[in-house]
Amino acid sequence: MSNKPQTAITPTRSEDFPEWYQQVVRAGELAENSEVRGCMVIKPWGYGVWERMQAALDAMFKATGHQNAYFPLFIPVSYLAKEAEHVDGFAKECAVVTHHRLELGPDGKMRPAPSAELAEPLVIRPTSETIIGATYARWVQSYRDLPILINQWANVVRWEMRPRLLLRTAEFLWQEGHTVHETEKEAREETEQMLRVYETFAREFCAVPVFTGEKSANERFPGAVQTLCIEAMVQDRKAIQAGTSHYLGQNFAKASGIKFQSREGREELAHTTSWGVSTRLVGTVVMAHADDDGLVIPPRLAPTQVVILPIAPKEDQRAAVFAAADQLAADLRQQTFHGQPVAVHVDKRELGGGVKNWEWIKKGCPVRLELGPRDLEKGSVAFCRRDLGAKSKEFVPMSEVVATIGQRLQTIQDNLYAKALAFREEHTRRIDTKEEFYAFFTPQNAERPEIHGGFALTHWNGSPEVEEQIKNDLKVTIRCLPFDASEPGTCPFTGQPSKQRAVWAKSY
Amino acid sequence: MSNKPQTAITPTRSEDFPEWYQQVVRAGELAENSEVRGCMVIKPWGYGVWERMQAALDAMFKATGHQNAYFPLFIPVSYLAKEAEHVDGFAKECAVVTHHRLELGPDGKMRPAPSAELAEPLVIRPTSETIIGATYARWVQSYRDLPILINQWANVVRWEMRPRLLLRTAEFLWQEGHTVHETEKEAREETEQMLRVYETFAREFCAVPVFTGEKSANERFPGAVQTLCIEAMVQDRKAIQAGTSHYLGQNFAKASGIKFQSREGREELAHTTSWGVSTRLVGTVVMAHADDDGLVIPPRLAPTQVVILPIAPKEDQRAAVFAAADQLAADLRQQTFHGQPVAVHVDKRELGGGVKNWEWIKKGCPVRLELGPRDLEKGSVAFCRRDLGAKSKEFVPMSEVVATIGQRLQTIQDNLYAKALAFREEHTRRIDTKEEFYAFFTPQNAERPEIHGGFALTHWNGSPEVEEQIKNDLKVTIRCLPFDASEPGTCPFTGQPSKQRAVWAKSY
Repeated sequence: MSNKPQTAITPTRSEDFPEWYQQVVRAGELAENSEVRGCMVIKPWGYGVWERMQAALDAMFKATGHQNAYFPLFIPVSYLAKEAEHVDGFAKECAVVTHHRLELGPDGKMRPAPSAELAEPLVIRPTSETIIGATYARWVQSYRDLPILINQWANVVRWEMRPRLLLRTAEFLWQEGHTVHETEKEAREETEQMLRVYETFAREFCAVPVFTGEKSANERFPGAVQTLCIEAMVQDRKAIQAGTSHYLGQNFAKASGIKFQSREGREELAHTTSWGVSTRLVGTVVMAHADDDGLVIPPRLAPTQVVILPIAPKEDQRAAVFAAADQLAADLRQQTFHGQPVAVHVDKRELGGGVKNWEWIKKGCPVRLELGPRDLEKGSVAFCRRDLGAKSKEFVPMSEVVATIGQRLQTIQDNLYAKALAFREEHTRRIDTKEEFYAFFTPQNAERPEIHGGFALTHWNGSPEVEEQIKNDLKVTIRCLPFDASEPGTCPFTGQPSKQRAVWAKSY
Repeated sequence: MSNKPQTAITPTRSEDFPEWYQQVVRAGELAENSEVRGCMVIKPWGYGVWERMQAALDAMFKATGHQNAYFPLFIPVSYLAKEAEHVDGFAKECAVVTHHRLELGPDGKMRPAPSAELAEPLVIRPTSETIIGATYARWVQSYRDLPILINQWANVVRWEMRPRLLLRTAEFLWQEGHTVHETEKEAREETEQMLRVYETFAREFCAVPVFTGEKSANERFPGAVQTLCIEAMVQDRKAIQAGTSHYLGQNFAKASGIKFQSREGREELAHTTSWGVSTRLVGTVVMAHADDDGLVIPPRLAPTQVVILPIAPKEDQRAAVFAAADQLAADLRQQTFHGQPVAVHVDKRELGGGVKNWEWIKKGCPVRLELGPRDLEKGSVAFCRRDLGAKSKEFVPMSEVVATIGQRLQTIQDNLYAKALAFREEHTRRIDTKEEFYAFFTPQNAERPEIHGGFALTHWNGSPEVEEQIKNDLKVTIRCLPFDASEPGTCPFTGQPSKQRAVWAKSY
């Protein structure tokens, strides 16, 4: 380890945050760029985190009455065009399928066969409101068919000109809920309920505190009446929109023809909602918790929660140390964390102890247990908590580790949340003057443009022109109008009255 | 129910098997055709079956050392073309992406923007050997990096000219395992191990007996050295290939450049495998078990294993019956079936008892429990087993139902397997003459071309010309050369020697 630099990741967060992020994702074996522009490969460790996210969310969706189903990848262009704002919002980033066969061209290379051109081009779904709406129009006849409460786990494609691993990629994985309701009230309640599910998930699983609220009209989902969102602060003090829930009014019902006979016998348009989170959540967790030695994965999302590192440099000690490691693993797997057996791995690879240790540090495994011949004699292990930094180490009797592992994992989970919350609070400021607002968002150092104030809680008169001006001047936008934040005041940009403070920030 | 026809499904299996299949899938709410040609919508009940299949297979993959990951949806045409047989096999059914933006055309309609044409067209993955191979080439440097044991759950697209719901659709869901090994021996062992996983899964979860063996060269996966498969017989006596496992030799390693430094310090090409099953398994289960009243879902795959149907025509009885139904459901959920709580649903919808009952019959729910005021007095329920037909009914004390539910579900599971096995044995014949072979596969009735013999176990001299001739004459192919079936004999088509009997059949 003598050649190791002071941190496992170069550059550090304070040296170059965007590059640090790329390096953490790479070193932690979460994901990497593929040969296809803008598309990522999600590696087993990263996919394992996503699987844990899926399992948790899926259970929460089912507990709120939703079922899963699956709809086509392809959307005919004419369907996408049915909702005017919607097609405007997505047309610029659509992957378009135009042919259904390849053939050998005159240059000896394969090409789309001209004789196999589609009569109508198909778009790879960037989101599925229109294709699912067409299906729902067939399913819904009467109020008795409502509500429809369905979720889909799927891949979607939005052609990105400036992709960034996990946060913004041409193809990504997500879930999209699509529901249909009799009344506006019921649909709005659904929209809010699912936002609360996302908020709970972010807090309890990702250990990320979020602001919840409504988007301004400028930032709404194309075609929605109301967009609700959860917004997280990450370590460069920018915001990440980590989940959205939309009340779509009757716009998509009208576009798709989702009509039903009401209790009063009238034909009515239904009210629909949609809501989604994506693999971007994995990137959010990285930016929120990782440090200059690599990833820090919250225990509830870690594919391996405890890794045991047997250390037996001498051949004749190996069998005893490996046996003790296996026994410890078996004992730990008998313990539970949130109702699941603790996920334990024994790393017996023939690699130097330092190399192995640093691999697991960079992967952000919540607990590392080092076990050597001397520990064995004492009946203890070196207990290393990733959330306390790469060097954290404490010697603990094995029996105590086993007895308290669930509790210890929860302590780590809680500590990560507390740190993230403290960081956000440190960098969130109530600002009441235009001067202070502009100063807050102006980088102190031209070489480090990412370092700025953080989140500003500032009044706003509701005018889109003010938003535009601030976006152009500072690249700052309204992230949300928080719920339950009624507080009459004055918009510092116009001097006009304001009903509540908005959350303003730079964002991903 | 007086107006009910003799069977819930029209036509019956014996009247028109292909149409019966479509009607069963529709009536059982498994899946339906979408607005996009060849693409299906998998409805919640059908997706629930797929989720159970996924959970079971995923656990079996992980138990054999595999991890999940995710690779791009898109494959550059030049990558697909790297393996000559492979591109030949798939070029005719590829969905091709040529543009990355839509714009408003001069006719006022959206069209692919000519300025956004891709430099190289992308194919939607029909299978991922080439794109995953490119990634593995980056990951593999040394024998120490091997084996790579990865699976992907994904959607794939193969443009089908004659789609059939769940069995053959343009887009379908599947899993594809892709592994890399040091030696041929290890790769062949992996190929066989995964076939055994599929065989076990088909038997224990789908209640479907399968022949396992090797494909003839004619039927091999394009680019493979060896293709192993599981082949099921369904109720029109045709075969369905329900899963395949391929030893790819060094073909794809060569095409993708997957090379490693061996233990001896030489640069060597790796040996790769791939293996997959798809939503076609859901269609296989339908064709294997459904009857003239609809679906029959094996308990281990049923999203709801027990449905309770409270019957309370009089308003004043409803509260007591509903309460008893809820209590019974709670008691049943305390019981387990293969380590999972029994999946119970209480159907309280305001629909006539007959309508509800027939809905659940058509959906193939393994157990229906009817509970009315008189049952309540007696402390019993009407226990209806779907596998014994729509009319099966037995009155059983509630406490006994609760105590024995796991056992009863297993009895149903076992019965379905036994019936399917008996059916296959009844329609499988050892045939040693060309005349008998041709007679076996010739429909008795010109109006019912699907009714023919079944599976023929017949010798074959190994010649592709014989296969071609029989395929042209009878639409019959070799489904597999079963394992462990060495039995020297004479090929009845050529009089030449044969090492073993092949399984011959018509197929989907």
